[in-house]
Formats: sequence, structure tokens, C-alpha cells
Amino acid sequence: MNKIPVAILGATGLVGQRFITLLHEHPWFEIAELAASDNSVGKKYGDAAKWQLPFEIPESLAEMRVLPCDPERVQAPLVFSALPTDIAGDLEVAFAKRGAIVSSNASPHRMDADVPLVIPEVNPEHLALAEIQKQKYASDGYIICNGNCTTIHLALGLAPLHKRFGLKKVLVTSMQALSGAGYPGVPSLDIIDNVVPYIGGEEQKVETETVKFLGKLKGTKGNEGIEYADIRVSAHCNRVATRDGHLETVSVEFIDKPSAGDIIAAFDEFRGLPQELNLPLAPIHPTVYRREKDRPQVKLDRDAEKGMATIIGRLRECNVLDYKFVLLGHNTLRGAAGATVLNAELLYVKGMLEKERWSERVVE
Amino acid sequence: MNKIPVAILGATGLVGQRFITLLHEHPWFEIAELAASDNSVGKKYGDAAKWQLPFEIPESLAEMRVLPCDPERVQAPLVFSALPTDIAGDLEVAFAKRGAIVSSNASPHRMDADVPLVIPEVNPEHLALAEIQKQKYASDGYIICNGNCTTIHLALGLAPLHKRFGLKKVLVTSMQALSGAGYPGVPSLDIIDNVVPYIGGEEQKVETETVKFLGKLKGTKGNEGIEYADIRVSAHCNRVATRDGHLETVSVEFIDKPSAGDIIAAFDEFRGLPQELNLPLAPIHPTVYRREKDRPQVKLDRDAEKGMATIIGRLRECNVLDYKFVLLGHNTLRGAAGATVLNAELLYVKGMLEKERWSERVVE
Amino acid sequence: MNKIPVAILGATGLVGQRFITLLHEHPWFEIAELAASDNSVGKKYGDAAKWQLPFEIPESLAEMRVLPCDPERVQAPLVFSALPTDIAGDLEVAFAKRGAIVSSNASPHRMDADVPLVIPEVNPEHLALAEIQKQKYASDGYIICNGNCTTIHLALGLAPLHKRFGLKKVLVTSMQALSGAGYPGVPSLDIIDNVVPYIGGEEQKVETETVKFLGKLKGTKGNEGIEYADIRVSAHCNRVATRDGHLETVSVEFIDKPSAGDIIAAFDEFRGLPQELNLPLAPIHPTVYRREKDRPQVKLDRDAEKGMATIIGRLRECNVLDYKFVLLGHNTLRGAAGATVLNAELLYVKGMLEKERWSERVVE
Amino acid sequence: MNKIPVAILGATGLVGQRFITLLHEHPWFEIAELAASDNSVGKKYGDAAKWQLPFEIPESLAEMRVLPCDPERVQAPLVFSALPTDIAGDLEVAFAKRGAIVSSNASPHRMDADVPLVIPEVNPEHLALAEIQKQKYASDGYIICNGNCTTIHLALGLAPLHKRFGLKKVLVTSMQALSGAGYPGVPSLDIIDNVVPYIGGEEQKVETETVKFLGKLKGTKGNEGIEYADIRVSAHCNRVATRDGHLETVSVEFIDKPSAGDIIAAFDEFRGLPQELNLPLAPIHPTVYRREKDRPQVKLDRDAEKGMATIIGRLRECNVLDYKFVLLGHNTLRGAAGATVLNAELLYVKGMLEKERWSERVVE
Repeated sequence: MNKIPVAILGATGLVGQRFITLLHEHPWFEIAELAASDNSVGKKYGDAAKWQLPFEIPESLAEMRVLPCDPERVQAPLVFSALPTDIAGDLEVAFAKRGAIVSSNASPHRMDADVPLVIPEVNPEHLALAEIQKQKYASDGYIICNGNCTTIHLALGLAPLHKRFGLKKVLVTSMQALSGAGYPGVPSLDIIDNVVPYIGGEEQKVETETVKFLGKLKGTKGNEGIEYADIRVSAHCNRVATRDGHLETVSVEFIDKPSAGDIIAAFDEFRGLPQELNLPLAPIHPTVYRREKDRPQVKLDRDAEKGMATIIGRLRECNVLDYKFVLLGHNTLRGAAGATVLNAELLYVKGMLEKERWSERVVE
Repeated sequence: MNKIPVAILGATGLVGQRFITLLHEHPWFEIAELAASDNSVGKKYGDAAKWQLPFEIPESLAEMRVLPCDPERVQAPLVFSALPTDIAGDLEVAFAKRGAIVSSNASPHRMDADVPLVIPEVNPEHLALAEIQKQKYASDGYIICNGNCTTIHLALGLAPLHKRFGLKKVLVTSMQALSGAGYPGVPSLDIIDNVVPYIGGEEQKVETETVKFLGKLKGTKGNEGIEYADIRVSAHCNRVATRDGHLETVSVEFIDKPSAGDIIAAFDEFRGLPQELNLPLAPIHPTVYRREKDRPQVKLDRDAEKGMATIIGRLRECNVLDYKFVLLGHNTLRGAAGATVLNAELLYVKGMLEKERWSERVVE
Repeated sequence: MNKIPVAILGATGLVGQRFITLLHEHPWFEIAELAASDNSVGKKYGDAAKWQLPFEIPESLAEMRVLPCDPERVQAPLVFSALPTDIAGDLEVAFAKRGAIVSSNASPHRMDADVPLVIPEVNPEHLALAEIQKQKYASDGYIICNGNCTTIHLALGLAPLHKRFGLKKVLVTSMQALSGAGYPGVPSLDIIDNVVPYIGGEEQKVETETVKFLGKLKGTKGNEGIEYADIRVSAHCNRVATRDGHLETVSVEFIDKPSAGDIIAAFDEFRGLPQELNLPLAPIHPTVYRREKDRPQVKLDRDAEKGMATIIGRLRECNVLDYKFVLLGHNTLRGAAGATVLNAELLYVKGMLEKERWSERVVE
Repeated sequence: MNKIPVAILGATGLVGQRFITLLHEHPWFEIAELAASDNSVGKKYGDAAKWQLPFEIPESLAEMRVLPCDPERVQAPLVFSALPTDIAGDLEVAFAKRGAIVSSNASPHRMDADVPLVIPEVNPEHLALAEIQKQKYASDGYIICNGNCTTIHLALGLAPLHKRFGLKKVLVTSMQALSGAGYPGVPSLDIIDNVVPYIGGEEQKVETETVKFLGKLKGTKGNEGIEYADIRVSAHCNRVATRDGHLETVSVEFIDKPSAGDIIAAFDEFRGLPQELNLPLAPIHPTVYRREKDRPQVKLDRDAEKGMATIIGRLRECNVLDYKFVLLGHNTLRGAAGATVLNAELLYVKGMLEKERWSERVVE
């Protein structure tokens, strides 16, 4: 079977490294090109990347030469973007204009009216927005985004509740891991024996992206944009001294308050398209509810379901809103690279990668 | 001047060690007796205590022999209690019955109807409850409590707001330091690269003690108990890998929503009896509002005002309640031993230590 | 194929948990019995163990009832011991006397003259000592030990050098992980932002076990005990705030100083019986030399080769002895449970488990 | 009394911040100028510095405008240098040429034949080298250096032994704190749950600076350079996850092996010029020997003697060299800024600051 050649933009960073490991032996995709910033261009990937993961770089990729993040130089029809925020905005559009499909982890286009911000279990129908882009760019290319690392897990945890019972208010405090800030990221002197109660721009992302994820397609044809969910979301975001895994304490208020048993059943039973279609990277259970009194915990639960699930626990009544609980997810897997890849897998099975375009090309 | 002889119960633990350092050169009190559990009794304090603080044990105290926590053996008229929860309940009553005034950091009696649960800046008038105890015990002795380490800082941060504007709802998430669990406390394998979203009993303490602190004396004589404040408080409590200093994210709703400027002014201007009376351990500012976008931080702010203040920052609008902010305090100083000593200082200036009882005794 | 039923003594602790994961799907062994201390006896293993590993307890084992560590109650012919030091000495002898073969991670018998202290790649011939025990106990049972977690990796790193070039002096400083102290082990307040330059008994273990590992069988029949290697070993042992993985800086002096290239070749080429016999838990390379200037590192290299190899790097001239280098190994895998299991695998292929004894028994 | 106006070069970094706190209320020196890199020039110091210490910047300094590190712009006769390595070499010479006395913490000139590398307790007589510089530069200015943070504490710990008994060999392994790498320095992802066994250039500094510190003035006039001590020093340097305080394990061999008691007495009794002259920053005991079995420890002992002493413990026989012990020191106080200031205090009392030059100037 011919695999689809893909490129990774921003391949040397932490999220880029996760792309490498998720795509290296992927059944549908084949890494054809690696691109990064100027000081890496021309180097072997193994020399350019400061590898952070506790296993070796696949040898064939270590030898691959790094390309510039230039749509004229990078040829793959499917592009995974881990580009830095300050350049992702323009570059991703340039890639879409030259016909590339861009599955992006970057933030600039997430809230664009015509960009699908998608979690495959939550709002796959938002993909319809891609058509608006194609027309705008007069191209086969378009951009699809996953959310912020904290938001994805929050939205995954809220989706079963909102779909069944209807949410009105959400108050969340996050305790976020260091890998969320990339590399070099947080200086060690800033975090050893410390908590930093501020992460630039993060709270706004959580508050706005969540209601887009949980929103509905507007218009009769379903491609006139998104009507945001009518939920008031407030976030406190903090950095703590963990390597991977964002923990969140969440209080919620419903339109009609369900029983605790109903809520746990909603978490237990939640499934979506990735499970139905058996996507390669899909977790068996996208949301996992743990019964222990002191779970989820970062070090024990972040890797559950290959890091692709949201783990929930400690559901109890809240004196201020209706209920409160704890939620945890791996921030660079389901919270970043894993989300970007799962989105591309969804495009694949939906026929949105238009395979005919590269069907002649043999990727060995 | 003759100082008042005092005893420390539970002297070898973390809070006991803080008592030692706060009382060692106190202008009004003199450590006369140290008491601890059976396996320490008879030993020199320097041998019995596993000293945790980054300076030496005062030499005279290192040589002092440890007594049992027995009201017949410990003679001091004023007793500081850092007793473990499981034995504090009965023992503190026994001390009160033999006539001792017990300033306690232990939790069992905090919510007793006749026990003053006091923060001197917040509710000094609650001391009136001591009279009920004196009658009940037919003794000059009584128990006065400070709150839980997380609650004290929350209540100190809320008091200026509740007094000026009236609070209705409070939603708090804590990120608590390791010293809050005592020694040996949290095993290192449980917390390195981890967050534990559960601390037994903690959330209930925060939710109940807060409304007692902010409550009012009932009855015409002011000694018929406390009417709890009509505030709904909900807490999520977490353990993180910091040594000292509890950080809390707080969302609040008011009876009448004030402006942000009014709130900051309330923090800036808050003063209480300890400041007015210039108590030895009183901070100059009990609440400190910081203007930086990323403060308070645990390592930078926990020692401000000798660890006796609550540091606040990041006031901003909340999408769910009215406002949200961040709050920090040192958990074993103002959150424990410092609170217990400040309470005793308040008793001293209020004449509630009945100095005539020990005025003959010379303490050199 | 019938698997050999095995028991785990001390099954609830950290090393016991590693036994569970290494033996759960072992091709030759089947966990038949789990034993632990009195407060666990009778409970389901899943309830008795405070599970520390980032994946679930195998379900069948979670349901297994915990037995007492009593040779009359535990029937398996092969017993893995993770018993605490204070009781391991007598209990392991009692198991050997009733005919059990005890592969032990405990320290009491390591330096016994008739107990093989074995690393399969280093000194498999020491197994001959087991015969002395069989005669002494008038039993088919005997004890075989692996070494201390720091020592095993030191000895594995030194073996290729000693075998080729002959060592005279070794000076080592260890930086040891928290899991080496078991659970609850090191209190978090003792190690956050700290190094503890003392681990009780550790330095002596490193200094004595190393020369037994590298020693030779005495006597014509090879079963008159061990002649220790004539190497002077000196150790400084320290505890640092890592979860798993002991790092060691090592300086060595040779009988005849080889070239640096010869030393690296010795590390690269080192193989032993486990590799030759393809034992299930054997690493492909028992010693791995890394060329980067800043490796091995704890977080990046401890899991290499399934945690069963010793990783070495930074070979350079030493101004005091001949050469110096850095060495790293996983302390609860190759440094503990992995070593105990690999020793049992060696017994299996050597025919020392006398399979006929349990060949009738069917283990499903 | 008129204080001597001083400048701080590299004032915004970690060591610069320590200079601020040590010099702010110094009895002899007054901070007159703060200089830093281009992106700080012109800003208020409080805005330019990312303040790292757990107390506030002195207000008057927070308002001071930052100057460029230019000898034409910085006028103070005494200059404290915390310049980065890559620019310190040329800039410090330029300052000396325009007549400034430069007390430097930077490394480029430490091993220059005509630059005194001084620990006031160890080798104050090396100051004589300054005359060579004055002639070379035809100026009243010259450079004096303190050593590397690891080396200073090693040399302080070795000095009492070398002076009394004569050392031949020293093998040291360091476990160094994060502040030693400056700010932002070590990325948190590189050090949480990790040890990095490599610090660029550090081992060579330890090996060469130590023998210069312990060396002797050559020539009849004592100003023909330094004859290095005939000691073979070998170092392994590691980075661990502590904030402040370098721990070192040390093995030593003597010309004539003394008794352990003699060694401890040497540590106990060691005093030098700073103690004799009662310099403001001098510790009472420059070397402190602790008798506990598990000390010194980083968190408990780094701040002893105001962070200006070297704390030693665990003296015991070494199987390879004669003795081994553990040594600890604060790396940014006595290991950096404290050393630079103490050197300047020594210059002051030795008359080497030529006070007449600024005696007219009034510093308010």
C-alpha cells in the first residue's frame, strides 16, 4: 500500500519530536520531509534536534536533511504544523494556498471563522468549514486546527456532559506541565520549589476555544461558521514542576442537574468517530473515569490509553456550582501532536485528503 | 521583666519546630517545657527532634529534656499545641481542665461551638466564647484555635472583601506545599513529577472553617456561639512539590459587585488589631496586593512580612463569578505556628492570660 | 508448555511490583503465589499493594489473595524474594530448607561464603556454590543473590575492563534515585531542593560486593568459595531527587593502562551468557557506550535496553587514577527485580531448577 | 564617613543580584553605578532585572538607570564584575587600563600569570601580582579574580589540610546547583527527574584553579608569578536539581597521612586574614566540620555562616586514597558574589584601594 507522504513543520521542537514518534511507523502516513528554522536547515535531523524523549530517534529520520519551512521547498500534500506562534499564521496560509492540507497544532488560526477547530470525538462535523477556505484560497488546500493542550482535555471531559445534560458554567484551574512551554521553555530556577500562577494567553485560549469545540455549525448547508456553545467558562492557569500531563480541577453547572451516577455513566460510555472508525491513534476510551479517591494523578495516569484519553476522577457535589471533579491529560500527546495526527486520520477516513492527488506517487 | 512560661506540645514535629523558632526570643513568652510523644520523652530535645530548618536549634533548647504530653507533668499556664489530630481532642481538654490556656494549631476543636477559631485581624471578638468553656470546665483554662493552613490564608484574603462588600460565593483551588503534611509526611515518590489532587479532610476544613472565621457572635452577650457567614464556599485541594507556601486560585461573587479598584484598595488598606496593637509577630500589612502580572509566586513571596501575610495578585473579572485572583501564604508560619503564637499575643494584650497567676514566678 | 509456578515474597513493595510486571507474561515462569507482611495477608493483591507504576496491575493478579511469607504456606518451587532486610536472612534459609530455590534481591546472604552472588554476564560460574548449600541444608533448595542496585551496574561496567585489562583501583561516587529506598522511603521534605550524602550501609555494599562479583571460584572443584578480586574499591553514595536510575562517576586504575579506544571497544563488544543463550530478559548489549559529550543522563538513558543494560559515557583521562567515566543504570530493573529474574532465567537454562520436580503440575 | 563608590558590571544577572544585596548596606562601599548589556541600558534597574531573590530590590537601586558596560561611562574606582565569559576578558582589561580596580567573578583572567586568584583565607599574599599588572597597564588599575564556584569551596576545604599536612592527590565529584548556571540557565525539562553529568569547562577549572589557589609566589620579590601546588586534582562535575549549594564528594591522599582527629582539628581551627581582620563579610569559621552521619546537606547547611563558609562532614578512610569526606558551599555567595566582595574587602584593609583617590568625593 502506498502511504501518503507528509511533512513536519517545526520538526525539531518538543511537539515536532512527538510527531516523529507518532508518524514514524504510521500505517497511512510516511514522513517525507522535515522542516525547521534557519539554524537547522541543511543539517541532519539527528544533529539539528535536541532530542528529549527517552528512546532513540528512528535512524532513517536522524539522517534526513532539514528543509526550510517554505511552501515552495516542502512538497508533501499533507503537512503537520508545530510552527511557533509568531510565524505560524502567515506560513500556514501560504501552505494552504499552494494546495497543502495543514493539520496544525499552532494557535493563530484556531479561532478563525472558517477554520475547523476539531476534536474528532467531539465535533467532527466542523470539518465542513474547510470548504469555505478552499474557495477563499482557490486551492485544494486548507487548515485544520486542534486546540490548546489544556483546552483539548477540558473539552473532551466536558463533551459527554454537555451532549447529554447541557452545561451552563465551567470554572477550571489548571496545573500544567513543563513540556507545555516547549524547549528550552521554563527556566529551572523559575519552577523548582515554585508554582507560577500565570501562563501568557492561556486563560483566554481555554475560555474561547472550549465554546468553539462545543459549538454547532450555523446555516442550512452547515458551512456558515460556528455558533459557539452558550457556556460561561472561566480559567485559572498555573505552571507546576511536572514534566508531562496537565491536571485540572473543574466545577460545572448544568441546565438541568443530573445525578452523579448519570454523570459517571456519561464519562464511562462516551465514544466518538475515532472509536467507531477504529482510527490508528484512537484511544479505546476517550474519557476514563477512575473510582479511587485520589486519582487521576499526573505520574500514574498521563500515559493511560497511549496518552490519548482524558482521565477524570473525584466527582462530588460543589457548594457553588453543581458538581466538581478532577481531570488529567497528556499535554504533548492528546494535548498536541496526538491531536494533530488524529485530526489527519479523521481527514483520511472522511476522504478529505483526496487521495487521488498522490495516488500515483510511490512511497516505499 | 518576667516572661510568661510556656509549654510546647508536639514540640518535635515540623510545627513544633516553628514554635521553637518563633518563641525562642519572644519578648513576652519563655519556653519552659517541651513535650512530645513517648519515644521522645526523656531525651534531649536536640536528640529527639529531626530538625528540618536551615539554622541551628537554639542551644539551651537542644539540651532541654522532653516531657510527656501530660497535663500533670506539664506545668506552664500557657500551652502551644501542635499535637497530632488523633490525640489532640482529649488532651487539649484535659489541659484546659487543669487550668491551662491552650493556643492550638490542632483541628479537633476548631468547629466546637464554644471554641474561638480566631485570626486576630479578622474576628478577635470571637474570643468571648472562651467564657463558655471556663464555665463548662469550671477552670481558668480554655482552648483557642487557629484554622487550617489553607483556610487561614483564604480567610485573611477574603476578610477585607467580606467586611467592605459582602461575599456570597467562593470557589477555591489550592496547590499546597509538602510541609503542610508534616514530617515524614508525603513520600518523595508520591510527589516528584506529580500532583496529588486529594488531601484527606482538607476540602471540608476549608469550606467550614472559612464561614466560622467570617461569622458573627450570636446573642446579646456575645457568647452564645457563632453565626456562620452566609457564604457558599467550595474547595479543590491539591498537593504539589513545593517545600513551603500554599498557593490558591480564588473566584468570588459579591452581594454587590464592587469595582476592581475598590477591591485592590480593600487589600491595600486592610489592617486589624495586631497592627493597631503592634503585636510582636504581626505583619505590617496582613494582606499585600502585588501588581505584577505573574505574582504571587511561591518561592518569591512566601517569606514576605516574615511569612505572616497573605499575598494576593492577578485580580481580574471572572466569567462565572464576579472576580478571580491568586492568593499565597506561608503554611507553617501564618498558616500554623505563627497563627498560634499571634493568637496568644492577642490573649496577652487583651488581659486574657490573667498575668497575676504567674506574676510572682521569675523567669530569667 | 507447562510454566514453572513461582512465588513472590514481599510482593507489595516497589521491587515486588517490578517482579509482577516482569513475571506476568514470562515465557517460562507463572506467578502462582504472592506473599507479603501481616497487614496484607488475606487481602486481594490489588487492595494490599499501593501500586506505583504507570500502568495497571494485571487483573488476574489484582484478585489474587496475599499469603503470609511462610515456607509452609507458600508452595512454589521457585521463590523470588524482595523481603525486607531485617527478616530476609532467616526466612530465605527456611525456604531453602524446605526445598525452594530462592532468587533473592535481599542483602543479608549476599556475602555468605556459600551463596552465589551473580550477574549472569559477569560471573555465572559462581552458581557452583549452590551445591555447598544443598549439602548444608540437606535439601534441593538454595539461595542465589543479586547485588545491591548501585553495585550491579558498577560491576557490569567494570567487568569488561577487568576481564580484558585487569583493574587495581576503583573510586566511585553515586547519585541514587528515590525508588532505591523503597516506598514510602525518602520523605519528600528530605530531598526536594536537596542532596543527602549518606545512605546507610550502601558504601560498604558497593565496596565488598564488587570484588565478590569480579572474584574467582576457589578450589579444584570450583566450589570452595570465592577468591575476591584484588581491587581496591572506594564509594561515596548520595541520594538525589530522581525517581529511577542511579548515576555513578567512576575513576579507575589498571594493572596495565590500555588506550581509550581499547576501553570503548571493551564496552562495545562485551557479551555474556544471557546474550549467547538469548534469555528472555537479557539486553542485547549489557554495556552501552554513548559518544555524546553529556550522556548518559538519567531521564534519557535509564530505560535503554528495557532497563537491563548499564550505560556508560564520557571516558577521559583522570589526573589521579588512569581513566574516568560516567555510568548509569536502572535501579529497580537491572539493579533489582530484573537482576533477580535474569538470575532465575540462568538457573532455568542451566537445568538448575530441576524441572522434573514440577513437570506433572499443570499451570494454565 | 565617606564610602567608596562602586560599580557593578553585569548587574542584572543572578550574581549581579547577589552583589546588590551584599553591597546595598555595606559599611565601606556604596553602589554608585549599575551596568549591564545593551537591552537593559537606560532602563530602571527594577525594570531591567528579572529579580530572583526572595526579598525586594532595595528601592533606591530599583530606580537607578542602567549604564552600558563601558569604561568611559562607568566612573567608579572600584568595579565588581559579573560579566559574561565571552566579553569579560577584553572589558575587564579596558577597565583596568582606565585605572579601575576590578574585583571579578568572571573566568577569563583567572589563570593569567599576573592576575591574583585569591581566597582571602587561603592565599592573600598572591595580591602581590597586582603590581605586575599596574606596570603592564601603566595605570593604577588591575584585575583580581575569585575562582569558580565549585573550586572556591574545594580550595577552602583543602587549604587547612594542605597547609598542615601536604596534599598529593585529590579526586572530587560535584553535584552542582542550578543557580551556578545563571538565569535562564538550565531548562527545567533538562533537570527535573534528571542528573546531567556534564558542565562545559567546569572540570578543567576545578583542576587548574585549585593548584593556583594552593600555590606559592615565585621569585625573591614575590611578584614573579605563582608556582602551582604539586597536587594532582581530578574532577567529575554534575548538575542536579537543587537551587543553591554545591555538594562535593572528595577523596584525598597526603604526603604523610595524618590521623582523622588531626584532620578534623585542622578544619575546626582553620582561620585566616578575614577572621583576624574581622572583614564585614567574613564568616566566623571559614570551614565548619559537622559530626552528624548525614551532613552537610544542601538545604540545611548552605546558608550557614551567611553562606560564606565551606561545610564539611563524613570524614572516613578511603580504600583508594587516604581519606574521603563530603563538602558543601553556597555557590552564589562564597562561591561567587560573596567571594568577589570579600576580595574587595581585603583590598580595602590592605590599603590597595588607595583611598586618597576618592577621599574628597562625598557619597551621600
